[in-house]
Amino acid sequence: MRCDVLAVGTELLLGQITDTNSQWIGEQLAAAGIDSLFQAKVGDNLARVETVLRRMLADADAVIMCGGLGPTHDDLTRDAIAAVMGVELQHDEGVADVIRELFAARGRRMAENNLRQAQVPVGATVIPQTRGTAPGLICPVIIDGVSKVIYAVPGVPHEMKDMLQRAVLPHLLQRSGEASVIISRSLRTWGESESGLNERLDPVIERLETEGNPTLAFLASGWEGIKVRLTAKAATHAEATTIIDRWEAEVRSLVDDIVFGVDDDTMESVVLQMLRDRGLSLGLAESVTGGLVAGRITNVPGASDVFRGCVVSYASEVKFDVLGVPEGPVVSEAAAAAMAVGAQRVLGADVALSLTGVAGPAEQDGMPVGTLCVGIAIGDAVMTRALRMPGLRDQMRQMSVISALDLLRRALTD
Amino acid sequence: MRCDVLAVGTELLLGQITDTNSQWIGEQLAAAGIDSLFQAKVGDNLARVETVLRRMLADADAVIMCGGLGPTHDDLTRDAIAAVMGVELQHDEGVADVIRELFAARGRRMAENNLRQAQVPVGATVIPQTRGTAPGLICPVIIDGVSKVIYAVPGVPHEMKDMLQRAVLPHLLQRSGEASVIISRSLRTWGESESGLNERLDPVIERLETEGNPTLAFLASGWEGIKVRLTAKAATHAEATTIIDRWEAEVRSLVDDIVFGVDDDTMESVVLQMLRDRGLSLGLAESVTGGLVAGRITNVPGASDVFRGCVVSYASEVKFDVLGVPEGPVVSEAAAAAMAVGAQRVLGADVALSLTGVAGPAEQDGMPVGTLCVGIAIGDAVMTRALRMPGLRDQMRQMSVISALDLLRRALTD
Repeated sequence: MRCDVLAVGTELLLGQITDTNSQWIGEQLAAAGIDSLFQAKVGDNLARVETVLRRMLADADAVIMCGGLGPTHDDLTRDAIAAVMGVELQHDEGVADVIRELFAARGRRMAENNLRQAQVPVGATVIPQTRGTAPGLICPVIIDGVSKVIYAVPGVPHEMKDMLQRAVLPHLLQRSGEASVIISRSLRTWGESESGLNERLDPVIERLETEGNPTLAFLASGWEGIKVRLTAKAATHAEATTIIDRWEAEVRSLVDDIVFGVDDDTMESVVLQMLRDRGLSLGLAESVTGGLVAGRITNVPGASDVFRGCVVSYASEVKFDVLGVPEGPVVSEAAAAAMAVGAQRVLGADVALSLTGVAGPAEQDGMPVGTLCVGIAIGDAVMTRALRMPGLRDQMRQMSVISALDLLRRALTD
Repeated sequence: MRCDVLAVGTELLLGQITDTNSQWIGEQLAAAGIDSLFQAKVGDNLARVETVLRRMLADADAVIMCGGLGPTHDDLTRDAIAAVMGVELQHDEGVADVIRELFAARGRRMAENNLRQAQVPVGATVIPQTRGTAPGLICPVIIDGVSKVIYAVPGVPHEMKDMLQRAVLPHLLQRSGEASVIISRSLRTWGESESGLNERLDPVIERLETEGNPTLAFLASGWEGIKVRLTAKAATHAEATTIIDRWEAEVRSLVDDIVFGVDDDTMESVVLQMLRDRGLSLGLAESVTGGLVAGRITNVPGASDVFRGCVVSYASEVKFDVLGVPEGPVVSEAAAAAMAVGAQRVLGADVALSLTGVAGPAEQDGMPVGTLCVGIAIGDAVMTRALRMPGLRDQMRQMSVISALDLLRRALTD
């Protein structure tokens, strides 16, 4: 089964927006075991859209088209599909009703051209719209005597994603003769390289290669660690979930020490939840990261029931005067310990995390760029760690944030 | 002149990385007045790369290929080009020397397969490598009796961008018979919508539409405001600069009040420089933004000579106890003023900026989500402003950061 992807929109070619839709669709197709060997972008020009679509259908079993389903005269995806199918567009009263209702619900007047979105190629099936005004389309077409499909979805990412998961992927899987439910789960890890993870998971990977379901993939997410993604196919949701549960346990049996969360968990949301569960409040003292840890913590909705605040002690005198750090080298484990204890006291927090280090461009106090000292105070207990971070200023700072939060997570686990 | 773009790499189709190269190239081509009507992604498969390249050359005057120039057997761009040109690859000793020197300079052993990168199609011109080991290629080719060009550049963004600006764009412009130097300058603005900017700049835009050089474009950069980009073409760098200087003055005469910087300036780098010029130190007190302002300020290298630190007073008691805010509603202009004065005192700063507000999910102290109160203390003078920010949690917080920094910038200007 081969499904290629065509993104439609002049703004994509002009570089005014990035085509992240194709990437996301490519990722979903790969997880579902469907080949996607060619992906293209074309502008809002009927002749060109039609030509490109014909060429792509000659090579692939199916083509997903993204964008060009809006209400303006520039939105030509419906017309191009009808031309390739060799059929007319016809008005679909059911779709029109939904569009009218969406406008009414928002208290807005509907311009007449919005009914262009109710035009459907004869023989196509509508994918009902739940979020926007444009419905998707499933369009069977015969190319050189072979039955193929064109899928059309809106270019707005959340509408596209919704229709792809709800209608396009199940339809594609059914056509390919595969089971029609597909579920993914990502285990989020921190502290191991991709090759290291690969080595540790080798026994599971070997067995999965034999079984073929679920599949396992490593997804690097930069400063956020590596995700181990399991993707299972089955006839029902319950069966797929059972498969995922079983293999999640297998994976965890080998690498549970570096798994900090699942799917949408972040290091900061996990740490906040651990503190909340234990009834502990959090304070921070940041130097090298200059507020980045606090910024991430406070990006989690509901952080205020745990998080007291932070002292960003960038100047040494702020460390001495506000946090009570003894005069001396400020990039040291001793300074990190004093910063954590100071933050506990000044902010009235049960637990405090501190970071001091050297982000560059130059070394400081004789310590090289990349040095990070972390302090953790939990009640009366204080621990420190010195680490060496990679990279230049921005990378060093971002890696420091997640590394320090992971140390706090581990300290809270013990 | 039409130049299409082909990105090569299976990882692009699998969605493991986003193809931002095509977008960037599309933006450059548009600024240079060159049409780009089709852009595609294809995997590391020689037959498919060759087929797609032939098809694209049938339609366009030139094709820029990105990626597939590495040293491994998966890197097939050179082979595909040679096949389309109908020539052999030959070893280029000059390129090989540069590769050997790059490895030697890094003190690393060069694996023999790196010399694959010294293979050049007969008749092609090398674009010398300055950053990576892969050189670029300019490959003339006759398609159906018409002279066309294939450009090959590495997929690593900074190498690609360097070669595109240094060699590919000038070569394309020369072929199109246009002036061969192209220069852009972006004026960064904050505080006006795109339609508002358009209206204010209407007199300049009208004259530019007649003259045609430079071009003017609005680039929305989300939370960072709107860029007004001028792009001039000329025979020499000096001429192009003269054109840009003249029209920058014209643009500024209409919207100078909202221009905060040029090109790589950021709101935080501009504010830091203003403080540095005036010999003033900066302290912050953040509540709603929870450290985001401090995080951005400290991301500017050299911030430490101006920035003292920040008190993230997320819990109300931290506002009262550490900053000395009087008990009462903490989302108010009075609280913002007290926070700024408190930050000045606690952090020993000449100037302090404070932010308190409601990011949601729920309202607070009877103030709706989106409320932002900013305090600015400069010496003994204190000013406050209440603003209403749009959007949900993340957007509200990010908009608050730049809005507050802009208020500080204006206060320092006066």
